[in-house]
Amino acid sequence: MSDLGTADAVLRLLLDGQARTRAELIDVTGLARSTVTGRIEALVAAGLVVPSGEAASTGGRPPARFRFNPAARLVLAADVGATHLSVALTDLAGEILYRSTTPLKIAEGPEVVLDAVARAGHALLREADRSPDDLAGTGVGLPGPVEHSTGRPNHPPIMPGWDSYDVVGRLSRELPGAVLVDNDVNIMALGEHATAYPDVEHLLFVKVATGIGAGVISGGRLHRGAQGAAGDIGHIQAPGHTELCRCGNVGCLEAIASAAALATTLGVETSRDIVELVRAGNTTATSAVRQAGREIGTVLAAAVSLLNPSVIVVGGSLSQAGDSLLAGIRETIYARSLPLATTDLQVRTSRTSQDGALRGAAFLVQQYVLAH
Amino acid sequence: MSDLGTADAVLRLLLDGQARTRAELIDVTGLARSTVTGRIEALVAAGLVVPSGEAASTGGRPPARFRFNPAARLVLAADVGATHLSVALTDLAGEILYRSTTPLKIAEGPEVVLDAVARAGHALLREADRSPDDLAGTGVGLPGPVEHSTGRPNHPPIMPGWDSYDVVGRLSRELPGAVLVDNDVNIMALGEHATAYPDVEHLLFVKVATGIGAGVISGGRLHRGAQGAAGDIGHIQAPGHTELCRCGNVGCLEAIASAAALATTLGVETSRDIVELVRAGNTTATSAVRQAGREIGTVLAAAVSLLNPSVIVVGGSLSQAGDSLLAGIRETIYARSLPLATTDLQVRTSRTSQDGALRGAAFLVQQYVLAH
Repeated sequence: MSDLGTADAVLRLLLDGQARTRAELIDVTGLARSTVTGRIEALVAAGLVVPSGEAASTGGRPPARFRFNPAARLVLAADVGATHLSVALTDLAGEILYRSTTPLKIAEGPEVVLDAVARAGHALLREADRSPDDLAGTGVGLPGPVEHSTGRPNHPPIMPGWDSYDVVGRLSRELPGAVLVDNDVNIMALGEHATAYPDVEHLLFVKVATGIGAGVISGGRLHRGAQGAAGDIGHIQAPGHTELCRCGNVGCLEAIASAAALATTLGVETSRDIVELVRAGNTTATSAVRQAGREIGTVLAAAVSLLNPSVIVVGGSLSQAGDSLLAGIRETIYARSLPLATTDLQVRTSRTSQDGALRGAAFLVQQYVLAH
Repeated sequence: MSDLGTADAVLRLLLDGQARTRAELIDVTGLARSTVTGRIEALVAAGLVVPSGEAASTGGRPPARFRFNPAARLVLAADVGATHLSVALTDLAGEILYRSTTPLKIAEGPEVVLDAVARAGHALLREADRSPDDLAGTGVGLPGPVEHSTGRPNHPPIMPGWDSYDVVGRLSRELPGAVLVDNDVNIMALGEHATAYPDVEHLLFVKVATGIGAGVISGGRLHRGAQGAAGDIGHIQAPGHTELCRCGNVGCLEAIASAAALATTLGVETSRDIVELVRAGNTTATSAVRQAGREIGTVLAAAVSLLNPSVIVVGGSLSQAGDSLLAGIRETIYARSLPLATTDLQVRTSRTSQDGALRGAAFLVQQYVLAH
């Protein structure tokens, strides 16, 4: 959540859905009457704010009220995974209106994948019977590090052909409005935070799927780090391990506790296979998932000592395996953290699952619109 | 650094030391003329802002300029260590004017220690020939977890008698103005950041002394965490270790790489003894310090993956041991982090040393004054 300047104080205030008079807006923001009036006029002209009845009169003509209008514009949200593409049309509040999902390999490269994003977006617009000009912008989540300021992937390990690719430029040719890009775990963290924990200051979202990553919410805002590489916990060394990781290092958490690592151990293909084994009561699979939870918990215990979050949310495909993963994670977090940091710590499974990524992608656009 | 509301936009703007006219302040803040005029009057009455010459006239009486006046009030900054007390009088910009240091054991308890803080403060005021009423407030750093909002220590391990003690209430009886309390590593991080890296968004300050702790700057602001326990890296498990720690757990970083642990190994008393051995060319001590650096580096590598800072500052008494500690830290950080996160990473020795804590404590008060 970026800081919004004084100029956006009016819209920011109205975001809570409450209707307010000019006098109330002047009073709360401390802005000049002329500033507030001008801002309201611009927002009404843009459709972002609409008149909403009248306040009680204190004599004379009753003053008009204004409220935020989330239906004013549409947002295209895209969640690009390693092997799937989900897109949705949402309103400006992130409410999902239309959606579609198709299998698609990120390794097909940026031209193929981004073309599919644009086509899926236009298909949803037709389904919704809306014009592309109704789009406020497009938010995209990609499965690798992204330099958020430019929207360019930054040496993404599982995205051949994407390094430094101009995602914003490519999509802007096909879709009107702003294009915002971030990595998938960051948008999942944003979506989970905005949807399920809006008042929580310090939250850690952990995705356990083919890979392992985290999104860090610090002081209510996403912490992206200097190169946008924050949250890359999959390559922290798990104590006592020396397995070779695809990154070239040894003993990385991802090399021993990801769905990919477990699938190899269990002789299956996907995280869905693992989840099915666990649900069918296969003790080898259940035990492997629990042990993976313990390994992840060791790394998260260090994160708890460093960041003292009040909520850790575990999401990603392997989190569907039920309580085993969470139990293993909790076991080592509580064993390895100081009591002070875990007194009020909640460790929970994601409440938003797939929707979290789409809502987070929409949230990127909402924040951009508010700031511009 | 707390967010400051609209009401403080005028003072916040003037903090850069530049003089501005009312018209310039109205223009930049977007605030109403009456708001700016009222705010300027209040700030001038409080002495925080002073007239500063006139701007060029555009016809008629030339408009007055105003600037921030850091000399308006004094700040008492106190750095309470395990075995010392340092206090300083600073101006509102954190510039140290007078200071004193005395040996004092934190284990003497809050009554004795806080009484000493108040007496040292009054002594400096007399030395400066200033009245206690000139104090804007007092900032205090304590060597343990502190709930910043209340200023109460929260189960501090090396501070018997201090748990939940009302530090603010006790000091407020002896000293006028606000009292702000935080843990020592946080104020060192604030001081280092404000003094040496004001434009760095993501910084990690690591204190290596009797204990080991960190201060986390995220998005330019101190990340305190849910219980104010963030940065407690001394109790993260160092891979492969099982030494008993005073916290009751085993293998904690602090139990193997702190000055206390090294002093035991080397058969000396204090971190100063260790530093002297290293400076005298003692290879056993040099090798032990370097190995401690490697162990700390393993934990910091995890922090780099999680937070992607652009600067890591190493401070605390053991950082005086020269290059050995830093070399060990760098060795494992670079061995254990993804290239993307370390491309532009700087790992440096603290530039502010003792002053950092005092400046950070003063900074707490400055921020409070600005927000109220």
